[in-house]
Amino acid sequence: MTTDIEIICIGNELLIGKIKDTNAHYLAKQATILGSNVKRVTVIQDSISEIAKTVCEAIGRTPQFIITTGGLGPTFDDKTFQGIAKALNLNLEVNPTALAMVKEKCIEYAKKRGLPTNIELTPPRVKMATLPQKTKPVKNPIGTAPGLQVDVEGTVLFALPGVPIEMEAIFNETITPLIKQAVGDEVFCERSIFADNIMESRLAPLIDKVMSDNKGVYVKSHPMRTESEPHIELHLTIIAKLEQDPNAKLLKAAKELTVLIEQNCGLVKADS
Amino acid sequence: MTTDIEIICIGNELLIGKIKDTNAHYLAKQATILGSNVKRVTVIQDSISEIAKTVCEAIGRTPQFIITTGGLGPTFDDKTFQGIAKALNLNLEVNPTALAMVKEKCIEYAKKRGLPTNIELTPPRVKMATLPQKTKPVKNPIGTAPGLQVDVEGTVLFALPGVPIEMEAIFNETITPLIKQAVGDEVFCERSIFADNIMESRLAPLIDKVMSDNKGVYVKSHPMRTESEPHIELHLTIIAKLEQDPNAKLLKAAKELTVLIEQNCGLVKADS
Repeated sequence: MTTDIEIICIGNELLIGKIKDTNAHYLAKQATILGSNVKRVTVIQDSISEIAKTVCEAIGRTPQFIITTGGLGPTFDDKTFQGIAKALNLNLEVNPTALAMVKEKCIEYAKKRGLPTNIELTPPRVKMATLPQKTKPVKNPIGTAPGLQVDVEGTVLFALPGVPIEMEAIFNETITPLIKQAVGDEVFCERSIFADNIMESRLAPLIDKVMSDNKGVYVKSHPMRTESEPHIELHLTIIAKLEQDPNAKLLKAAKELTVLIEQNCGLVKADS
Repeated sequence: MTTDIEIICIGNELLIGKIKDTNAHYLAKQATILGSNVKRVTVIQDSISEIAKTVCEAIGRTPQFIITTGGLGPTFDDKTFQGIAKALNLNLEVNPTALAMVKEKCIEYAKKRGLPTNIELTPPRVKMATLPQKTKPVKNPIGTAPGLQVDVEGTVLFALPGVPIEMEAIFNETITPLIKQAVGDEVFCERSIFADNIMESRLAPLIDKVMSDNKGVYVKSHPMRTESEPHIELHLTIIAKLEQDPNAKLLKAAKELTVLIEQNCGLVKADS
């Protein structure tokens, strides 16, 4: 059974093309390396109803993990906790642990900047500690805004900040061990071979044959240049238990594909 | 009324973190500049049922446009036309116009490479021209695989290739004029101001005030450095008819925000 993950990125700035999202790519890559199966990324606006709907839909697909990024800060447009509260039909309340986390960080930054440390817990600061009831704050080692963790019908939902270094720190510290535990002894392996001067349409039946001969191995072709000067990466991947020697399976499939390409398209000049 | 757009990016390579998606960012930026409202980006795997489900969900939200990218090529994992056929409950059939497009491109590439031009229309090539019934092929000026266009209950659905230069070419040639027409005389405007050494939580109530005083202007804060050394971009945006002078509205809001920040946080050293 695969460990399925969904990622939800929240922020108007992503949808107006102001910011190039890097969080989804980071999370997808790390989660894949850990052996899990990233099923979907959804990018939505700063809207409580959009967040609530998207979280509900994701929960309905029963992945083991949902990770949201963005919308945890002090400003009006940071609406992730409100959206999750609506999705789970929970009230919002100030979480004392989260409030202590916010205060501690404010004091830390004031000290660093040589400012007074008699921090006032203004409404925007209290907002960052106002979580849906029954959810758990997650320590943010880098920034002020705590994350959130909650179990919903077998799915673990995490809300992480959108600032990449904060998001990455919480992911590595808190979520990585949980994914590892869920994945168990399955690993993700990959291997690439490259074909020059052969059109993708000629490679298609060879890929079909290798996939059919090598169960569990997925082969995906990636055209890297223009079609009039084809250079194609054939990327072979597998998720399998280590005892099943996935690397050996990939090597066998890659060799078979190489031989097939040489046999069928060897006379590159004859290719069209 | 806003012109809503949804983007669906199809490809396992995006969800395993192998490829950093640039298509969604490009489309979101261009569509926003044209004055439309990008509501959602969804990234899904190469799976007919996933594509069908996601397309159905998007249609259900009744945007004016849905643009999919990826999954139009000759290999087994290119499943977008199959997914759209399933979503719309249409049969697949070889489209003669699309087949002529594929053949023409194959001949063009063979010529460029000095190869024979008696092109065989192999199954992988015919696959690229096998569209859901009642849909229209869209000319790909750069690559072999045609795109697709279909009207579904007031939503125009486009399927574009995943190769960025091909996707961009079709978007600019075919979709841009349609978005412009739908948007009419509304424009998107933006303006930024920057605040140094002020924590985001202190800016929050000032942003609230400016948004309340300047209807239609959206202000979003973007922390750019660490919180112990704050540098925050305040990004002001508006979508409005040109005759309503949206740039003047932005300028007024930006001035008000600047004054508020100077009045409330002017003594930067006193900030915490």
